[in-house]
Amino acid sequence: MGERESESYVHGYTEREHTRLVDQATTLSELLHHDTRYPPGARVLEAGCGVGAQTVSLARNSPDAQFVSIDLSAESLATARARVRDAAIKNVSFQQANILHLPFEKESFDHVFVCFLLEHLANPLRALHCLRRVLRRGGSLTVIEGDHGSWYCHPQTAEASRAVQCLIEIQARLGGDALIGRRLYPLFRAAGLEGVQVTPRMVYVDSSRPDLVESFSRNTFITMVEGVRDQALALGLMDAAAWDKGIADMHRATEADGTFCYCFFKALAISP
Amino acid sequence: MGERESESYVHGYTEREHTRLVDQATTLSELLHHDTRYPPGARVLEAGCGVGAQTVSLARNSPDAQFVSIDLSAESLATARARVRDAAIKNVSFQQANILHLPFEKESFDHVFVCFLLEHLANPLRALHCLRRVLRRGGSLTVIEGDHGSWYCHPQTAEASRAVQCLIEIQARLGGDALIGRRLYPLFRAAGLEGVQVTPRMVYVDSSRPDLVESFSRNTFITMVEGVRDQALALGLMDAAAWDKGIADMHRATEADGTFCYCFFKALAISP
Repeated sequence: MGERESESYVHGYTEREHTRLVDQATTLSELLHHDTRYPPGARVLEAGCGVGAQTVSLARNSPDAQFVSIDLSAESLATARARVRDAAIKNVSFQQANILHLPFEKESFDHVFVCFLLEHLANPLRALHCLRRVLRRGGSLTVIEGDHGSWYCHPQTAEASRAVQCLIEIQARLGGDALIGRRLYPLFRAAGLEGVQVTPRMVYVDSSRPDLVESFSRNTFITMVEGVRDQALALGLMDAAAWDKGIADMHRATEADGTFCYCFFKALAISP
Repeated sequence: MGERESESYVHGYTEREHTRLVDQATTLSELLHHDTRYPPGARVLEAGCGVGAQTVSLARNSPDAQFVSIDLSAESLATARARVRDAAIKNVSFQQANILHLPFEKESFDHVFVCFLLEHLANPLRALHCLRRVLRRGGSLTVIEGDHGSWYCHPQTAEASRAVQCLIEIQARLGGDALIGRRLYPLFRAAGLEGVQVTPRMVYVDSSRPDLVESFSRNTFITMVEGVRDQALALGLMDAAAWDKGIADMHRATEADGTFCYCFFKALAISP
């Protein structure tokens, strides 16, 4: 992770985190990826594939496209390779690379795909410019990001809101932006992309969907917030009692009469 | 309005407010109403029709159903009648009535429809019980409500958030709940309804949709927040300078590089 330039990481590569990222992809795959289908023969760059949590869905939905999935972390790439091999997927090759210094020719990809990466970057606009360079004219750029400020639940408490705010603030201190979802439209426009279309992908969870309560509310979102406990307390953003109440309150919202809301944003545009 | 029992009103019936409600219905009609279609001959109660802002869409989408639209305010009903007449709609009759004392026989409607009403009630569960009484077994109840806590924008400022929070707090002081959208699922379950399905109806606005910037962000949402300025200042919730900055900041988010988000919730269930 030290070799990642201009990037910051709230999500650690712990075993628990690994499980979270996989849960997220499995559960949200349809919501996030169903409308991304690349034609046969298309050469697609997946920038920042991490442990391959999205790669399997991406490659499966476009079985005749050829994917090059890159990440800075050799360890993540090893995990991603194993995951793709276990899924019997053949149309992905992996390569260790820095998104800000892409080892590819100008306009060498037909399409570029990015998921959950820009939120960690100190300069996401610079990353978009780097990605545009390797994208052919008329090719598409797809970016999917979350927005932690889009979260709310019922019943909601001040402590639960503050715990989520800690996650946002810690990501900001590390140079990232946990509210980047709502910024994708102006970022794409600033990068000179055309025909920019941003669509919200809202996750609404109540107890009629116990699978989503488990996979999204508990194992994705609350687990992610819980992951910054030590940092939040060390920074004095909350005290331990308030933090623990906030987390308990979030779990309360996963009970039979609770609800849970979060929104991802998906941006699509063409390189002019 | 004094005759409305157990209800509270943040939305006044000023001319400007009237325009806002109509703008809202025209703009959001497809998002909110497209999937509500009643069969020929169905007898449908629209409870709390107000000035008829939703009635036109509702009746037009089910031209062979028969609607009875009620409201407590004779003045609102007069406006609603005129609107429906001007739209050449023939399948709506109006009646002045209190949702908590409905002048209808038990199980006398095939379906019941409610939009933007429960948010104003001190006891929305009691209202649901009253509505269930006049709904036949196997008939459907549809409720659409907003949730002001679902709002966010880019760029967002503390003052803009506080201004929206004022609206939420003023509605709470009046006995209502501006966060009711996220509560529809538990409310329906508590009312004993079956097969409850809640779907979020998110409005995402960027400058690629200048019509929505104008009709939703400016003329619906910001206008609604601006409407409680005097109350917010009188209650000391914000000072005038901070309030005016908050409103200006919200307008800032309607510029070319701004975005604006809000979520309505639609609940549908069957009376067992």
